[in-house]
Amino acid sequence: MIRTLIVTKDQNVLIDVPLSRLSDPDIHWYWVDFDDPTEEEASLLKSHFHFHPLAIEDCLHLLQRPKLDYYDGYDFFVLHDINQNTLLPEEIDIFLGHNFLVSFHYLEASELELVRQRIISDKLTLANGSKSVFYHIMDKIVDEYFPSLYRIEDSLNELEAQDADENLIEEVYTIRSQLLKLRRTIFPMRELLYRILNSERVIIPKEDRVYFMDIYDHLLKLSEMIESNREMTADIRDSYISINSNRMNAIMKTLTVLTSVFIPLTFIASIYGMNFEYMPELSYRWSYYIVLTVMFVVGSSMIIWLWRKGWFK
Amino acid sequence: MIRTLIVTKDQNVLIDVPLSRLSDPDIHWYWVDFDDPTEEEASLLKSHFHFHPLAIEDCLHLLQRPKLDYYDGYDFFVLHDINQNTLLPEEIDIFLGHNFLVSFHYLEASELELVRQRIISDKLTLANGSKSVFYHIMDKIVDEYFPSLYRIEDSLNELEAQDADENLIEEVYTIRSQLLKLRRTIFPMRELLYRILNSERVIIPKEDRVYFMDIYDHLLKLSEMIESNREMTADIRDSYISINSNRMNAIMKTLTVLTSVFIPLTFIASIYGMNFEYMPELSYRWSYYIVLTVMFVVGSSMIIWLWRKGWFK
Amino acid sequence: MIRTLIVTKDQNVLIDVPLSRLSDPDIHWYWVDFDDPTEEEASLLKSHFHFHPLAIEDCLHLLQRPKLDYYDGYDFFVLHDINQNTLLPEEIDIFLGHNFLVSFHYLEASELELVRQRIISDKLTLANGSKSVFYHIMDKIVDEYFPSLYRIEDSLNELEAQDADENLIEEVYTIRSQLLKLRRTIFPMRELLYRILNSERVIIPKEDRVYFMDIYDHLLKLSEMIESNREMTADIRDSYISINSNRMNAIMKTLTVLTSVFIPLTFIASIYGMNFEYMPELSYRWSYYIVLTVMFVVGSSMIIWLWRKGWFK
Amino acid sequence: MIRTLIVTKDQNVLIDVPLSRLSDPDIHWYWVDFDDPTEEEASLLKSHFHFHPLAIEDCLHLLQRPKLDYYDGYDFFVLHDINQNTLLPEEIDIFLGHNFLVSFHYLEASELELVRQRIISDKLTLANGSKSVFYHIMDKIVDEYFPSLYRIEDSLNELEAQDADENLIEEVYTIRSQLLKLRRTIFPMRELLYRILNSERVIIPKEDRVYFMDIYDHLLKLSEMIESNREMTADIRDSYISINSNRMNAIMKTLTVLTSVFIPLTFIASIYGMNFEYMPELSYRWSYYIVLTVMFVVGSSMIIWLWRKGWFK
Amino acid sequence: MIRTLIVTKDQNVLIDVPLSRLSDPDIHWYWVDFDDPTEEEASLLKSHFHFHPLAIEDCLHLLQRPKLDYYDGYDFFVLHDINQNTLLPEEIDIFLGHNFLVSFHYLEASELELVRQRIISDKLTLANGSKSVFYHIMDKIVDEYFPSLYRIEDSLNELEAQDADENLIEEVYTIRSQLLKLRRTIFPMRELLYRILNSERVIIPKEDRVYFMDIYDHLLKLSEMIESNREMTADIRDSYISINSNRMNAIMKTLTVLTSVFIPLTFIASIYGMNFEYMPELSYRWSYYIVLTVMFVVGSSMIIWLWRKGWFK
Ligand SMILES: [Mg+2]
Ligand SMILES: [Mg+2]
Ligand SMILES: [Mg+2]
Ligand SMILES: [Mg+2]
Ligand SMILES: [Mg+2]
Ligand SMILES: [Mg+2]
Ligand SMILES: [Mg+2]
Ligand SMILES: [Mg+2]
Ligand SMILES: [Mg+2]
Ligand SMILES: [Mg+2]
Ligand SMILES: [Mg+2]
Ligand SMILES: [Mg+2]
Ligand SMILES: [Mg+2]
Ligand SMILES: [Mg+2]
Ligand SMILES: [Mg+2]
Ligand SMILES: [Mg+2]
Ligand SMILES: [Mg+2]
Ligand SMILES: [Mg+2]
Ligand SMILES: [Mg+2]
Ligand SMILES: [Mg+2]
Ligand SMILES: [Mg+2]
Ligand SMILES: [Mg+2]
Ligand SMILES: [Mg+2]
Ligand SMILES: [Mg+2]
Ligand SMILES: [Mg+2]
Ligand SMILES: [Mg+2]
Ligand SMILES: [Mg+2]
Ligand SMILES: [Mg+2]
Ligand SMILES: [Mg+2]
Ligand SMILES: [Mg+2]
Ligand SMILES: [Mg+2]
Repeated sequence: MIRTLIVTKDQNVLIDVPLSRLSDPDIHWYWVDFDDPTEEEASLLKSHFHFHPLAIEDCLHLLQRPKLDYYDGYDFFVLHDINQNTLLPEEIDIFLGHNFLVSFHYLEASELELVRQRIISDKLTLANGSKSVFYHIMDKIVDEYFPSLYRIEDSLNELEAQDADENLIEEVYTIRSQLLKLRRTIFPMRELLYRILNSERVIIPKEDRVYFMDIYDHLLKLSEMIESNREMTADIRDSYISINSNRMNAIMKTLTVLTSVFIPLTFIASIYGMNFEYMPELSYRWSYYIVLTVMFVVGSSMIIWLWRKGWFK
Repeated sequence: MIRTLIVTKDQNVLIDVPLSRLSDPDIHWYWVDFDDPTEEEASLLKSHFHFHPLAIEDCLHLLQRPKLDYYDGYDFFVLHDINQNTLLPEEIDIFLGHNFLVSFHYLEASELELVRQRIISDKLTLANGSKSVFYHIMDKIVDEYFPSLYRIEDSLNELEAQDADENLIEEVYTIRSQLLKLRRTIFPMRELLYRILNSERVIIPKEDRVYFMDIYDHLLKLSEMIESNREMTADIRDSYISINSNRMNAIMKTLTVLTSVFIPLTFIASIYGMNFEYMPELSYRWSYYIVLTVMFVVGSSMIIWLWRKGWFK
Repeated sequence: MIRTLIVTKDQNVLIDVPLSRLSDPDIHWYWVDFDDPTEEEASLLKSHFHFHPLAIEDCLHLLQRPKLDYYDGYDFFVLHDINQNTLLPEEIDIFLGHNFLVSFHYLEASELELVRQRIISDKLTLANGSKSVFYHIMDKIVDEYFPSLYRIEDSLNELEAQDADENLIEEVYTIRSQLLKLRRTIFPMRELLYRILNSERVIIPKEDRVYFMDIYDHLLKLSEMIESNREMTADIRDSYISINSNRMNAIMKTLTVLTSVFIPLTFIASIYGMNFEYMPELSYRWSYYIVLTVMFVVGSSMIIWLWRKGWFK
Repeated sequence: MIRTLIVTKDQNVLIDVPLSRLSDPDIHWYWVDFDDPTEEEASLLKSHFHFHPLAIEDCLHLLQRPKLDYYDGYDFFVLHDINQNTLLPEEIDIFLGHNFLVSFHYLEASELELVRQRIISDKLTLANGSKSVFYHIMDKIVDEYFPSLYRIEDSLNELEAQDADENLIEEVYTIRSQLLKLRRTIFPMRELLYRILNSERVIIPKEDRVYFMDIYDHLLKLSEMIESNREMTADIRDSYISINSNRMNAIMKTLTVLTSVFIPLTFIASIYGMNFEYMPELSYRWSYYIVLTVMFVVGSSMIIWLWRKGWFK
Repeated sequence: MIRTLIVTKDQNVLIDVPLSRLSDPDIHWYWVDFDDPTEEEASLLKSHFHFHPLAIEDCLHLLQRPKLDYYDGYDFFVLHDINQNTLLPEEIDIFLGHNFLVSFHYLEASELELVRQRIISDKLTLANGSKSVFYHIMDKIVDEYFPSLYRIEDSLNELEAQDADENLIEEVYTIRSQLLKLRRTIFPMRELLYRILNSERVIIPKEDRVYFMDIYDHLLKLSEMIESNREMTADIRDSYISINSNRMNAIMKTLTVLTSVFIPLTFIASIYGMNFEYMPELSYRWSYYIVLTVMFVVGSSMIIWLWRKGWFK
């Protein structure tokens, strides 16, 4: 579907006008949104707007990273929305000219719809034109990154309180890969903002860049949160390995102490359990008590020896 | 609450005057502190001071990182205090103009109170004006980072003397996450100072930057301490894993040696403990001594074999 | 074999003409492809084209990385194709002049053949000349990197669903070394594109660089995919170690619990299995039941003790 | 104590003159050394030399890192000596003017004493003045870093030859933390030298910088030695963990093989050790031999099974 | 020994002439090689050539890293040869002037000898002078790095095919430390080449730098090979640890299964092996068969329980 929105020089808002209306002289600025366009609609990028073939190719194909290209008369932006469920990026392409903004996306983009409503009902940005709309779209997209990251931070905090078991490690792994996914979107968006702020050639005037600086702040904050959360997960995992190796030591000590004490004693008992006819000790009056004493001495010696090695600490 | 402080051209200090007094011609400079302001008080940022909406938004919302924005007539700073108990950052926002400083914070900020007292009682910075006050606030904030880090370093030093057990690993983990928290505050503050020192546009004159250089030195020192403490904790943890794996080897060797020696012997004894009627060895005169000899040989062989494998080292 | 292709000023395409024809005045531009040349053919680089000895040496020897050298009248590029089977790089060398392109390669280069066919049949780039051909070759080469990386990503995704066993670790290792191989080709290609885009001296005019920017985007995307896939494999491996250490704990607990309970009991039984003549307990009426009770108490105590240590969780 | 040294214009050296003598017109240059000064002596920095309060504060307080500050008429340096026993840094502060050098330190600084002796006895640097003295001090300080690092390298080399046991890991850990300590001194000193070499504002003339380049070379070399030694210790530790896990496997295999073979056999024997009245096998003529045969078969089967699993390799 | 080589203006080559001959007017350029010089010969650097004391000091002392210093009339280079046996660097120092090259080395330097022979017999570089000789020396030195690295790569490839045992880890460790050694030479050499290529002050003219670019390419390639080989060894080692932990799990499962099944059974048998007079079960007709049945049930239960836990997979 193609949605058009026109602001006339006397600041009226017209919506859903035909494309031919866009070149009328009374137009202050306009916004055309290609929302999951058909192939035929998409072909208007070329036939009606005459955008550069490379930019159109970037619209039609999916494999893009956030970026900014300069063309004559307009800048071309690829922006990345985050899908709150999959944490995967969803592409929104924008052509930004002095008096127009053309947006292009195959997936639902609630951020665009929201800004559109605010223009129509709140008269937002009527006077300021397409660059201001672009700011509001970006601001909205970046604001939408926070809930995803907050949700991850919350699970991480729960994790820290939790007991260390196999589950924990799998959750740590899940969180790490979620952070990795977010990073793949947020870092290139941060670089994009950096380019917008520092470019000589970009269409946005110097005095308006303070607004984009505000978005950049958010992206810096997000980047830092991601990185330090990833370090926290690494720390949890590494401590977990250490703690586990420690517990294993305790378990093995228990096993070894018990075995060390009883195996020799059982061996001694088994000797006198043999059924040979000629075993002089068997008939000797005090044998049983002597063997019990020997067992006591051997058992105690083992315990003292292990005690000295510090295994009972 | 709003606290005002005025220095007149003849260097008198007036406190708690109404805001309307601030525009009087005899005023050398003034400082207005919004200390946990009500919503109504906060609205004065807009209605009375006419600060930029983006800066006001940064004051009212919590998610900020230390930063510096340039606006016409003033610079806007977000500074981060460290809460000594939680090690979390607490935000202090500052508008710095040529003859005024407006500070804004929701949480208690003892640093501000301290500087305020010194202005009133010690006549500190009366002649130098708002930029000098700003320096003293920053200096105080950064000085307050040290106790937290020193406390961490102390626990780390105690840890190094300590025996390696499960506790140690949990303490190492705690220290690592405390360092991570401090880093989230101190690194952006260091970058902020770097920007102040190297910016062409900042309101602070070149000749006064040597004072901010002094603060920057402290932040560099703090950064290095954090990083090298984190490396030390990593080293402690990694050595701990190594030592544990070594102890495990020792434990398992003990277990295996004992088992290896006694299990075959006990098996031999158990054979002659069987109650079959027809076991010719049982009635043979020397059987018992022969079996004891065989046991001695088998046991010794096992010990010699293990000795040769180096398991007694 | 040497393949020639000439475009005349009136945009005819001639193929397989002799080299002497290349200097004719009616020639708009030409492309000479050395496809697995004989030594004699290779010597034409020197005798006919008079290229710089260092560039010729780079053609003849294999140990090169992607690079760009400036010479008088032409730029010299070393490009790397990826062999889809081995993932190893295959070298394609290109001399790019204002009206000529000379390519040189010992291995099959389907990308070149493809571009050549499109020139002949689709009249592609006839007017634009050698630099446009160069763009199409590079574009094709970089497009060919994706299938290899996609295949690796697919195996990685399968791996994530899979059970953790020894196989998994070997596959992780295989994937990591495949990613390492791709990185050795893709990173230097990315740097090469960066140089082309930012060089003052390169033969490609500023207005055509937007096309190379498009290739650079692809290489950035590829680089990020490689790095984040490598991080994912590291995460899989590290989680695997953690999970394994946890399982080991469970196994050892089972063993230790069983041994702890039964070894003392078996020892007690073995005492009364001894055959001494004088063992007063043997003839006592209630001995058997007392011993069974003692065994029950000892066994239960062990179980309670281990339960309290939390080994049954 | 305050030590003065004056070189007059006719190149006489006077020592221990009063401070008032320093402003005499016949003075070519002078050096004042504050060696563990009293509070009163330290106050001369302010009252006699009128140095900047920030620089004086840096002298009096301990928490500094190597650095360079520019003030009117002099540069202020903080240098770090390494204490050969503790490997901790010891601070030496230097004010360097065109015809004077003022040094300040609370701890013994043999490097200063050495340079001082060479000036007095060898007439070193008499004509070149304070900047040349400064070079000799720095050169001496950096030369003194080497013995500490060589000692660490020596222990590391011994370690490599050594057997892998718990001791080794503790020594590796000790060496790692010693390297960390050295790094905390040497890296900032290297950065300081870099600033001296590249600064436009520093008091040292361009033509003399070749001497400081020589010191910088040493610091680069030291930095590389530290980093590559740290990597070596990490490698030793990581290999040690691998080797240990391998040995553990061998130990556990031995234990498991022995247990696997003898536990079933002992169980069989224990069955026929039971004292039931009605056990038909007991009185059967060939039982004993049959049981022995069964035992042989079971034991051999276990061994063959384990052999096939590759546990005897 | 001191070896001289003179090229006269009419392109004759004279060798082993006295040093006094070097200043004759018919000399085009000359090369003096100090090959393991005596102290007396080394003193000629100062007395005859009047080189800078810092450069001479660098020649006489061993602790250098590859570097370039600019002096009036000549550049001073420290180059590092790799000893193929020890992989340790061997220093070659070079003074390069417009019409002379002075080389200085204590250890055998076959690269110099080779270049010298080619000048004498092949008339190499006769016209181009000292800078061309310098290029050929560097080219030779860097070419000699490859065999060492190839040898390491070969052992690494063999390693990948090999079975994972303790040996493998020690070889991995050896390879890692060999790579570390090579890196200590090759990385600073690469930086040196970078400086030569980008320096404004170096004695080599811009148009000749393409030759040094060729050497720089080699060093980049070598650096990448070292880094990616180091990553491969880390991968091998980390996979090895994972695989080992997996095998340990398998071993421990075997042990635990066997113990779990037989220990309770042996305990039951041992009860009825006790010799009490009053054990009613002993004389009961079906006891033996009941006990055998109980044993069968207990053993089967254990096996089923372990099967359910997935220990037989
Ligand atoms: Mg698209
Ligand atoms: Mg969306
Ligand atoms: Mg926002
Ligand atoms: Mg906002
Ligand atoms: Mg903001
Ligand atoms: Mg970590
Ligand atoms: Mg705020
Ligand atoms: Mg506070
Ligand atoms: Mg301070
Ligand atoms: Mg201070
Ligand atoms: Mg200071
Ligand atoms: Mg570490
Ligand atoms: Mg080639
Ligand atoms: Mg190919
Ligand atoms: Mg492409
Ligand atoms: Mg394309
Ligand atoms: Mg640019
Ligand atoms: Mg594209
Ligand atoms: Mg990781
Ligand atoms: Mg001090
Ligand atoms: Mg000292
Ligand atoms: Mg020195
Ligand atoms: Mg020296
Ligand atoms: Mg030197
Ligand atoms: Mg390492
Ligand atoms: Mg030397
Ligand atoms: Mg050599
Ligand atoms: Mg070469
Ligand atoms: Mg060559
Ligand atoms: Mg080459
Ligand atoms: Mg790795």
